Amino acid sequence: MALHEQEVPVGAVVVRDGIVIGRGHNTVETGESALNHAEMLALREATQAVGAWRLNDAVLYVTLEPCMMCAGALMLSRIGGLVFGARDPKFGACGSRIDALAPDMGWNHRVNIISGVLADESAALLREFFSSRR
Amino acid sequence: MALHEQEVPVGAVVVRDGIVIGRGHNTVETGESALNHAEMLALREATQAVGAWRLNDAVLYVTLEPCMMCAGALMLSRIGGLVFGARDPKFGACGSRIDALAPDMGWNHRVNIISGVLADESAALLREFFSSRR
Repeated sequence: MALHEQEVPVGAVVVRDGIVIGRGHNTVETGESALNHAEMLALREATQAVGAWRLNDAVLYVTLEPCMMCAGALMLSRIGGLVFGARDPKFGACGSRIDALAPDMGWNHRVNIISGVLADESAALLREFFSSRR
Repeated sequence: MALHEQEVPVGAVVVRDGIVIGRGHNTVETGESALNHAEMLALREATQAVGAWRLNDAVLYVTLEPCMMCAGALMLSRIGGLVFGARDPKFGACGSRIDALAPDMGWNHRVNIISGVLADESAALLREFFSSRR
């Protein structure tokens, strides 16, 4: 989706009890907002679906490692888990560039993180996008 | 505003060329979204006003030190400057709890930060709110 809109192709879904309750893809350019990362849009939709801002029983899946903004948003939303694909050495805030949600940060909420799921496929999508723009 | 809505009273404005182009106050509870921090709402309004996601010539003023999500959002928005009031020892991401925008983080955008402006007044607002809830 994002790929065809000249957006960096990143997609996210929020799942609870096996049901997708929020989805989003990066729309920074078309939405004219640096806040429109896939994770933010998926979280927003999920909280609307739940009718509350806490998402303890939900898991967010995203193709690319979240940045600092999104990592903060995941924590604030009290999301239960995070599963991501490719690592982001430049902006990744979940272990690559910084480790914003690490247990030793001592935040008031712990997000369970699984990384590297479909990492090659996710990275290939991004490579395809960036090579097509050169 | 936020104070009367049982929200933690935090307010933010984005200013460019002496004109307020975005404003927001915390609506996490009423908006049922952990993403509804004052800064996020003000940034969103400002980018809509500008019609682009970059806010290089703008400054965001906020009564409380931004959290990690908001610090990330400020950087992503390429905001020129940040002026905040009270420090937040628990969640402050601009020097108190963490220093997410510090020059030595090596991010691709530098936000000029001034802290402590009307800090006592800002802190008094928060104290009033939290004591009224006990």
